[in-house]
Amino acid sequence: VEILSGVFEGKSTGAPIALLIRNRRQRSRDYTPFKDIFRPGHADFTFWQKYGIRDYKGGGRSSGRETAGRVASGAIARKILEDNGVKIRAFALEIGGVRAETLDLAEIEKNPVRTPDAQAAERMKQAILDAKEANNSVGGIVQLQVTGLPAGLGDPVFGKLDARLGGALLSIGAIKGFEVGDGFEVAQKTGRENNDEMKDGKFLTNHCGGVLGGISTGEPVVIRLAFKPTASISQVQQASDIHGANHELIVEGRHDPCIIPRAIPVVESMTALCLLDVWEIQARLKRISSCFDMFKTDA
Amino acid sequence: VEILSGVFEGKSTGAPIALLIRNRRQRSRDYTPFKDIFRPGHADFTFWQKYGIRDYKGGGRSSGRETAGRVASGAIARKILEDNGVKIRAFALEIGGVRAETLDLAEIEKNPVRTPDAQAAERMKQAILDAKEANNSVGGIVQLQVTGLPAGLGDPVFGKLDARLGGALLSIGAIKGFEVGDGFEVAQKTGRENNDEMKDGKFLTNHCGGVLGGISTGEPVVIRLAFKPTASISQVQQASDIHGANHELIVEGRHDPCIIPRAIPVVESMTALCLLDVWEIQARLKRISSCFDMFKTDA
Amino acid sequence: VEILSGVFEGKSTGAPIALLIRNRRQRSRDYTPFKDIFRPGHADFTFWQKYGIRDYKGGGRSSGRETAGRVASGAIARKILEDNGVKIRAFALEIGGVRAETLDLAEIEKNPVRTPDAQAAERMKQAILDAKEANNSVGGIVQLQVTGLPAGLGDPVFGKLDARLGGALLSIGAIKGFEVGDGFEVAQKTGRENNDEMKDGKFLTNHCGGVLGGISTGEPVVIRLAFKPTASISQVQQASDIHGANHELIVEGRHDPCIIPRAIPVVESMTALCLLDVWEIQARLKRISSCFDMFKTDA
Amino acid sequence: VEILSGVFEGKSTGAPIALLIRNRRQRSRDYTPFKDIFRPGHADFTFWQKYGIRDYKGGGRSSGRETAGRVASGAIARKILEDNGVKIRAFALEIGGVRAETLDLAEIEKNPVRTPDAQAAERMKQAILDAKEANNSVGGIVQLQVTGLPAGLGDPVFGKLDARLGGALLSIGAIKGFEVGDGFEVAQKTGRENNDEMKDGKFLTNHCGGVLGGISTGEPVVIRLAFKPTASISQVQQASDIHGANHELIVEGRHDPCIIPRAIPVVESMTALCLLDVWEIQARLKRISSCFDMFKTDA
Repeated sequence: VEILSGVFEGKSTGAPIALLIRNRRQRSRDYTPFKDIFRPGHADFTFWQKYGIRDYKGGGRSSGRETAGRVASGAIARKILEDNGVKIRAFALEIGGVRAETLDLAEIEKNPVRTPDAQAAERMKQAILDAKEANNSVGGIVQLQVTGLPAGLGDPVFGKLDARLGGALLSIGAIKGFEVGDGFEVAQKTGRENNDEMKDGKFLTNHCGGVLGGISTGEPVVIRLAFKPTASISQVQQASDIHGANHELIVEGRHDPCIIPRAIPVVESMTALCLLDVWEIQARLKRISSCFDMFKTDA
Repeated sequence: VEILSGVFEGKSTGAPIALLIRNRRQRSRDYTPFKDIFRPGHADFTFWQKYGIRDYKGGGRSSGRETAGRVASGAIARKILEDNGVKIRAFALEIGGVRAETLDLAEIEKNPVRTPDAQAAERMKQAILDAKEANNSVGGIVQLQVTGLPAGLGDPVFGKLDARLGGALLSIGAIKGFEVGDGFEVAQKTGRENNDEMKDGKFLTNHCGGVLGGISTGEPVVIRLAFKPTASISQVQQASDIHGANHELIVEGRHDPCIIPRAIPVVESMTALCLLDVWEIQARLKRISSCFDMFKTDA
Repeated sequence: VEILSGVFEGKSTGAPIALLIRNRRQRSRDYTPFKDIFRPGHADFTFWQKYGIRDYKGGGRSSGRETAGRVASGAIARKILEDNGVKIRAFALEIGGVRAETLDLAEIEKNPVRTPDAQAAERMKQAILDAKEANNSVGGIVQLQVTGLPAGLGDPVFGKLDARLGGALLSIGAIKGFEVGDGFEVAQKTGRENNDEMKDGKFLTNHCGGVLGGISTGEPVVIRLAFKPTASISQVQQASDIHGANHELIVEGRHDPCIIPRAIPVVESMTALCLLDVWEIQARLKRISSCFDMFKTDA
Repeated sequence: VEILSGVFEGKSTGAPIALLIRNRRQRSRDYTPFKDIFRPGHADFTFWQKYGIRDYKGGGRSSGRETAGRVASGAIARKILEDNGVKIRAFALEIGGVRAETLDLAEIEKNPVRTPDAQAAERMKQAILDAKEANNSVGGIVQLQVTGLPAGLGDPVFGKLDARLGGALLSIGAIKGFEVGDGFEVAQKTGRENNDEMKDGKFLTNHCGGVLGGISTGEPVVIRLAFKPTASISQVQQASDIHGANHELIVEGRHDPCIIPRAIPVVESMTALCLLDVWEIQARLKRISSCFDMFKTDA
């Protein structure tokens, strides 16, 4: 990473911090055979429909490589949030059908699949190796937990905290589902089961996942994200090209049979960027309102 | 609805169209007993934490009544989209554990629960009545289908079509989950199963739900949304108040035991508003780009 | 004014404050003769070119009546700024060629033309009456002074304080010129004459008008605005209509021969709205930066 | 200039075009003596007040060097506008008290001061050399003319064309005044003198400078900008430092005694960027509105 601006003698100056990461390890010749072909599961077709021009040397802005920018800037956002007591942690909850049963956060960085269950880690790893062996790929679920967030973040109506986090996280490629708290399970629950009651000013449960009416409750924010299996697989697939002709395509090249372990820092970074945005908008509105002596806390 | 501005002799003038809907049928005295108490499942606690002031006469901006504005403005957006061939349809896929098995869109408006399966409709209705009888409530799943959308809508990286729809739809109160295409099912699928292959320039499947790389494919956009059960139930619940004291609370008043039938027009309206936004940003960018003769279509 | 939302029991709730002012004293029949004719000096022609439709009953959004909304919302912004020690004052510096020689702010509200020079006030008033007598109108210059603004407001490059104030104030109809500090006079000055030197940490002069590099210096912000003479005059003027035909037009109706006295609260209100925006953006950025312990003040 | 992204095989791809210009010819040691001193007429004091940290190696974002980015991106905007028939031309109207009397645009690039009057060019040049000789600097006025702009650009109320151009141009450092059409002269004119009458659908005069009610008339847009004299002069000036101590300061280094000739491309570039923005917003709104068959033109 080259820091182009915004930092002087080890401190930020208030100028925008521009970070430049050059895409050095590209091997564009890998892509030449697909120059005119729409790879299944990729954005080749939709970019072509949208722009009518194609930089076929890698996926361009639809490549996973664009996430480097999210992680680099997310590192700054995370540092600010951590200094304010906010902890953001994501991990593999499920890979290739193997689900973590225990949630020991201390385990996450001890295994290559970044799951909080040491035993499941082995089976997840095997599921990925099996997929690789079969020239195939697997998907999974990432769980995100944010602790230390004060109550009161997020805005009513269109700026809800979960809506903003949803919009931010769904912008990460390969995510096809988002749920907060009990998520899709709420469809089969009753109000009695789903409501979080309070006693002595504390919540007795956290079915809502830390967000009520779009505003943080102060309890942990819990989110799950569904990742699709890697689109690039070394099997024969049917594909069309820009002229409408048909091809039998095998996508060679360096491709992960499962992107989840590498996607986890991306999830954490986007969460940090989004939360910092919400936090600051909140700070701004509080500032205005405080002139009317309207808030009891100064968070 | 009173039209305050923007329409003259039956035509829009280009001025902002302001619509005023007064909240006439409020019965504020229903809320007086809860003046200082945080109702479980509601935004009372989080609004209090955020603002330190409370308009206790109804939920205010966290009330379902704010959706009237979304539906009113969505009606205009829908009209414009329909004139361009875009059809937006949402329906109850599941209520209280009862799932629609057949998807006959013509059935939707024939039953009060707005489901496309006439037989399931009866059982959904019964599930709601049972919940009402038990002073309880039920949740469910809404499915959304958009057809007629051209390929090429949405933007790479942060402005993906599914990210924008996710952010827009998750801003509707009570939604706890969002998925597009095969959604959370992709977690257990392989790349081979999940990729949508093409033949003769057409997609053979639509696992992706009409969006690849954040850009529309031209196939139907398919989204599912998890709705939590209504928070207001006439059962005794534990609750705290603004002073930290404990209460046993029964929420009386006019409350639906299931909000899904009434939420469906809200889902459709937010979809229309979001799609029109994306469409116009797209038009704007195309306009700039067309000066470089870069696009093949003029959509 | 009807307050539609955002205020409960005398306090703002954090919800948007919506104010409704109905345009009751309109006399639309006054405008019927001009239904298809483009009044000279008005926006009739440009609105027609832009929208191709015409709400001929008054100028619509190009009418001075739209400024009621600016003044109503500006009153809230002003109250917040005043609570923070910021004073905003505008006055007539020149009307119909008569210029105020003394700047006694206490005089402003004592005369109907809102000028700080009691003697000039009489001559300005006469200039307006002479114009009225001649079925004509006069222009003038408004000076704006903001005191109590802390140093450090405004942002480098595109968000400069003077750029933002310029954009905000030039959005008021009838303003054709904007200058800050010595304004157009700087064109004939040397660097030696124009630079504001400092001694003991204080500025010795304020040629810059309180803004250096787009950021407030803490000295008074001084701005002058040129207002064109009222376009509606009861003299025969040549005009075209929407069909390209020619007319000799006399614009009857209730029209001020000089809008400056009534424009002054509008200038003050737009200044308040703009400054509050800048202030809050500043607060937001300071908040982020303060995590890096980067600011010495906590303003 | 290094093109980092957005261009592939000579065409733009739709991805953002990132241009990198490194500040190579900096001579930072020139600035070391001023490390803690606030140079008169510069943003040193205000940046210090705002950020409490100082990158003393040149003016940073308050340096004229930041305009390189405006000119580079403006070149792209200009190309698009020119392809649509819009011509943007700025020139020195006045330098050091010498005013151009003839406006022969063909002369502009034939003399080093970029003025349309060959004879005035010599005297302007001499005024600059005299200032240099005296270790001083001079200001002046730039006039901007935009032709080929269609009628109907700009928006009512807050998005007026002149307000947006004003905000954009006042963001250029050193500009202290902005006027459109007859500008400050309107203060001493009557409505009769100032109104632009029409005959046969054409304007007979252009006192308004091509903008009525904030929307373009189709006539040339004429704007004048007052530039202050260069702040850096090699004379002894009184200055304070960050500790409140006093200094007698002489600013050495490479400084232009008049920035106007070099500011002219910056003015043209900002105009192009602003107009393209307005144009596209317009295109977007027209697109929505056209669904209601509301516009007669399809511009």
